[in-house]
Amino acid sequence: MIHFACDYAEGAHEGVLRRLFETNLEQTAGYGEDPYCCRAQGLIRQLCRNESLEVHFLVGGTQTNTTVIAAALRPHQGVIAASSGHINVHESGAIESTGHKVLAVPSRDGKLSALDVRRVYQSHWEDETREHMVQPGMVYLSQPTENGTLYSLAELTDLWETCQELDLLLYIDGARLGYGLMSPACDMTLPDLASRCDAFSLGGTKQGLLFGEALVLANPALKRDFRYLIKQRGGLLAKGRLLGVQFCAILEDGLYFELSRHADRLAMELRRAFEERGYEMLYDSYTNQQYPVLPDALLAALEEDFLFSFWSKPDGNHTAVRVCTSWATESRAVQELIRALDRWDGT
Amino acid sequence: MIHFACDYAEGAHEGVLRRLFETNLEQTAGYGEDPYCCRAQGLIRQLCRNESLEVHFLVGGTQTNTTVIAAALRPHQGVIAASSGHINVHESGAIESTGHKVLAVPSRDGKLSALDVRRVYQSHWEDETREHMVQPGMVYLSQPTENGTLYSLAELTDLWETCQELDLLLYIDGARLGYGLMSPACDMTLPDLASRCDAFSLGGTKQGLLFGEALVLANPALKRDFRYLIKQRGGLLAKGRLLGVQFCAILEDGLYFELSRHADRLAMELRRAFEERGYEMLYDSYTNQQYPVLPDALLAALEEDFLFSFWSKPDGNHTAVRVCTSWATESRAVQELIRALDRWDGT
Amino acid sequence: MIHFACDYAEGAHEGVLRRLFETNLEQTAGYGEDPYCCRAQGLIRQLCRNESLEVHFLVGGTQTNTTVIAAALRPHQGVIAASSGHINVHESGAIESTGHKVLAVPSRDGKLSALDVRRVYQSHWEDETREHMVQPGMVYLSQPTENGTLYSLAELTDLWETCQELDLLLYIDGARLGYGLMSPACDMTLPDLASRCDAFSLGGTKQGLLFGEALVLANPALKRDFRYLIKQRGGLLAKGRLLGVQFCAILEDGLYFELSRHADRLAMELRRAFEERGYEMLYDSYTNQQYPVLPDALLAALEEDFLFSFWSKPDGNHTAVRVCTSWATESRAVQELIRALDRWDGT
Amino acid sequence: MIHFACDYAEGAHEGVLRRLFETNLEQTAGYGEDPYCCRAQGLIRQLCRNESLEVHFLVGGTQTNTTVIAAALRPHQGVIAASSGHINVHESGAIESTGHKVLAVPSRDGKLSALDVRRVYQSHWEDETREHMVQPGMVYLSQPTENGTLYSLAELTDLWETCQELDLLLYIDGARLGYGLMSPACDMTLPDLASRCDAFSLGGTKQGLLFGEALVLANPALKRDFRYLIKQRGGLLAKGRLLGVQFCAILEDGLYFELSRHADRLAMELRRAFEERGYEMLYDSYTNQQYPVLPDALLAALEEDFLFSFWSKPDGNHTAVRVCTSWATESRAVQELIRALDRWDGT
Repeated sequence: MIHFACDYAEGAHEGVLRRLFETNLEQTAGYGEDPYCCRAQGLIRQLCRNESLEVHFLVGGTQTNTTVIAAALRPHQGVIAASSGHINVHESGAIESTGHKVLAVPSRDGKLSALDVRRVYQSHWEDETREHMVQPGMVYLSQPTENGTLYSLAELTDLWETCQELDLLLYIDGARLGYGLMSPACDMTLPDLASRCDAFSLGGTKQGLLFGEALVLANPALKRDFRYLIKQRGGLLAKGRLLGVQFCAILEDGLYFELSRHADRLAMELRRAFEERGYEMLYDSYTNQQYPVLPDALLAALEEDFLFSFWSKPDGNHTAVRVCTSWATESRAVQELIRALDRWDGT
Repeated sequence: MIHFACDYAEGAHEGVLRRLFETNLEQTAGYGEDPYCCRAQGLIRQLCRNESLEVHFLVGGTQTNTTVIAAALRPHQGVIAASSGHINVHESGAIESTGHKVLAVPSRDGKLSALDVRRVYQSHWEDETREHMVQPGMVYLSQPTENGTLYSLAELTDLWETCQELDLLLYIDGARLGYGLMSPACDMTLPDLASRCDAFSLGGTKQGLLFGEALVLANPALKRDFRYLIKQRGGLLAKGRLLGVQFCAILEDGLYFELSRHADRLAMELRRAFEERGYEMLYDSYTNQQYPVLPDALLAALEEDFLFSFWSKPDGNHTAVRVCTSWATESRAVQELIRALDRWDGT
Repeated sequence: MIHFACDYAEGAHEGVLRRLFETNLEQTAGYGEDPYCCRAQGLIRQLCRNESLEVHFLVGGTQTNTTVIAAALRPHQGVIAASSGHINVHESGAIESTGHKVLAVPSRDGKLSALDVRRVYQSHWEDETREHMVQPGMVYLSQPTENGTLYSLAELTDLWETCQELDLLLYIDGARLGYGLMSPACDMTLPDLASRCDAFSLGGTKQGLLFGEALVLANPALKRDFRYLIKQRGGLLAKGRLLGVQFCAILEDGLYFELSRHADRLAMELRRAFEERGYEMLYDSYTNQQYPVLPDALLAALEEDFLFSFWSKPDGNHTAVRVCTSWATESRAVQELIRALDRWDGT
Repeated sequence: MIHFACDYAEGAHEGVLRRLFETNLEQTAGYGEDPYCCRAQGLIRQLCRNESLEVHFLVGGTQTNTTVIAAALRPHQGVIAASSGHINVHESGAIESTGHKVLAVPSRDGKLSALDVRRVYQSHWEDETREHMVQPGMVYLSQPTENGTLYSLAELTDLWETCQELDLLLYIDGARLGYGLMSPACDMTLPDLASRCDAFSLGGTKQGLLFGEALVLANPALKRDFRYLIKQRGGLLAKGRLLGVQFCAILEDGLYFELSRHADRLAMELRRAFEERGYEMLYDSYTNQQYPVLPDALLAALEEDFLFSFWSKPDGNHTAVRVCTSWATESRAVQELIRALDRWDGT
């Protein structure tokens, strides 16, 4: 079976793993106060071209999202998100478990617009009974979204300016940020993004590490006492240097971006293959997650050799699936999938 | 100015207040462990024709809803509610503040159907990644709803059987339950309702008391240690007997239902008056809350003498408002409003 | 049976109840936005000689404590309290239910000293692993304490200056503040207290109202959006004016303080009676709560006619009880208790 | 510098790391639903001689403790722990952040006795105002404790029987369980422990893994929906197999216990060295954590070459430190420390 179901089916890029091997018996301080974390923090600041950023390393994405959102909001505030946002649907209520409502906004493609944000804000503040409602305090975006779609630089700038104007914090979930930034359709750089939000994450788990997310804090108010909050949410890894070592390994020579570009390129090959054969794509994705709508018979045939994630049933005879590439996907696997498409005789 | 904006603009029915006066200097145990609470609990059990019910008295509705929902759910569970449900929009995130997500279902009239519940349940349990989502644990209804609409006995029976089948708890918010049960359109009795849910509240604040909600627990699992939970949520009134005394006063001779019937009758008079003059009603309400859609010019004229609650703007020239009657509304006030409608010459 | 077990056995002072009666059928806006609340807020500001104070009215003490503490602390912060503090032992974990630890400090008499606070602060900040611990964020005092003891002006000033220096918030639980301020042993005024804390409560429930606590916020940072927080914790009373009306009635002509003085005077009479007859007092209280240590046989005899609260068993033959007077205690009841002491022949 | 400050200064045992390397590019399902986790779960059940145990893998200890405690308790319940227990002092209020109070019991050596538990239980249930207090719901032990001390089989049996009798859950934090079980002073086996609690953790992070704790659930009520709770608390590792692979590697041939025995042997060598030279031990530890009380001058001399953890200042001239050995400590390092002790001339 060849795995296209997700982008976390393998371990880590060999360069990352080797580095863990090489540093294994060194003795360092725990909980992220070691030279490797320090160095990786510097690398991220440098890549973002902003020396004032504060960087923390956490193990997983739900942990990262929950920690930063709960740290930022006062008890009566909520976080605006697209209804398909990870925090709204795939974190088992982690945000709510910290006391905060997710103010979900319906979205066709997984994106929020500045107008969406402004509407939620206004409908709150113009309501005379607003003190009986959850006050919007933050906006959550994912770049790329859970549907593989991307914000343009203009869209992000608009969102950021809107948030600044309305006194809302802006947090960007970058669990797949590399795949976003390296997409041929992306018109923003990492410094562009880093200068247009209060906080963002730079994902490692899905991008070539064993595990690990970098959380980057730009807003000074968020930085205060942040390590206490990580510890309280169970996210302060005892051998914290494992995160530093891995991020150093993947960030030092641009490996992170190279691997992302590789995955995106293969994903676009698949997209073209699906489209050329007449299959519609559920979302207009230019990143490593593709969502073809396939005849059920074709899907059944493919599933003898390939694994996908079920996404939705647009009608009785078709199924939309998620097809993921990753840093680990081999070109050969993509070719095999394309050949399988061709082999299918439509019955 | 005559107040039709809400059903809590006055104090209490004079019979209730008199009873507080009469018992004022008696010395009783605190925190609801007094003879008046005991007697009021008995009255409610009797009215429900079920001696096994456990009854608690709390001060307010948000407190009541939050306490019972947080007591019933495990941390990963959420409560299904109509998107217009009080807990979803008008409790400042109280449910979320206890760690639980409100699983909101769009609803045109404020009601949930058994099919809505079944769909939420199935979409959860049929999803392979359900462990990454909030598990439905309870269903929240309000009878009547926040839009004045009513569940029929058949609808409630269907919901209850569905909840039983799917192992979901059913809680009914009866902040205006009297106005519901006494409506000419209501085909259920209090025992009907009490035997078709795990818990419900019987509102007092909007029904003639100074304040107070009775929370009725039918499901044995909910009863255990419930007073701890009331205390923890700040709802255990020191002079708890104030709740008992008031509920005794209003329940003893059917006053509760008589006052409800009075308010419903006046509300129906108003509804007919609006409809006969060609104004559309936003919701098909047969209870004490009516939602006429009025030309803005008419509304402006009326607002010189009457207070309503703004509800929505269906178009640029019309406004939907909430017009409430209550136990305290005088027939004279209703006649004045109707005369004012007649006085308006349409400009 | 004569009730000395607590100070909330009766309803309200008749002047308070009468005012509720007189205003009963007035129509006002709900949720504390009425003229009576406004007027009562002004009275409290005036009594505190500080026009910048923000005043809110809540129903009960646990609700008040929980709301202000949870509003003030960030998630990783805790509140320093004497181990006998109400929030540590008698609120069913309400503070913890909002996510915050009570940092309990052992105390012989129920008081905290500035040195206690400084020690907790230093032991936190001098610890290299402090990020793994709860950070002290606030200090909770009760004046008078749960043991009837009082802070002197010098002690409070010392605590306040220490809190200011250490960047800790200071909150004073004044559930029985009247009984504290009117005590013959008290050397501070209400303005003294109001100018030496970030927030305090002025209790009504135990001081002559049916129910109600005024929460006074001095620190501007605490004021922001506070009504959302009250609503979220279930403390925004629909007919909020009931609180305003009652506080107006009791504050307007000094009734609050007169009733407190009355209760304190009777309590001191009881204390002298116990002491003159050779019974030790568990705490050195000059307020309405007295804690005599009585031979068990005497206690058994007294309990045929009087109700006390059990406090502790200092040895096999003695019991310490709480004897409370209140605004409602009649001089006659005190005389009867003293006569009963005299009647006892020691066997 | 040689590191004796903690038992998590290095990476993983080479056998563990090698296994990660070997399996690195295999494709498996995520979130712990892979063959390695399945196999590791089987190994643990086998070592515990109980096929009905449910085993979950989490990344860190705070996460593990918080998840199981919050899953087990109802909102009004708290967890009894020694005041020095990790959950009470070193988890930044993680337990409280989920709404629960830690009911701390003073303890000289870090242990709780069955009598301690019974006293907390009785003082709660015998109090007439217990509904105003946090109800004890669970007992938390650590084996070995944070002071290196051990429960005997008789003590644990007594605790377990007491918990069973009093309807309290018993959870054992085994972050260093290997070092406990392999101690020469330990008289219990893993099956002994596993059959005397409702849940326990089997630590990996401090025992030779890169990271990872196994959480073992014995009580059927705890098992229900447990993966939702792990996900909600941010503990469901995307590449969950990393935990399975590591636990397989260390458990398969008894490596876990061999490494523990090694660390304990070196720790006892150090203890003897300290004691033979007349230095008192703060706690009577027979496990990998030793707590010598050293003259400050000696400590200063040692700290030129060795790292310890500061523990406490028993007097002005002495300091108690924690000296840890681990799976990674080399015998040579211990010999150097002993030589350094001998070199010191007492000035």
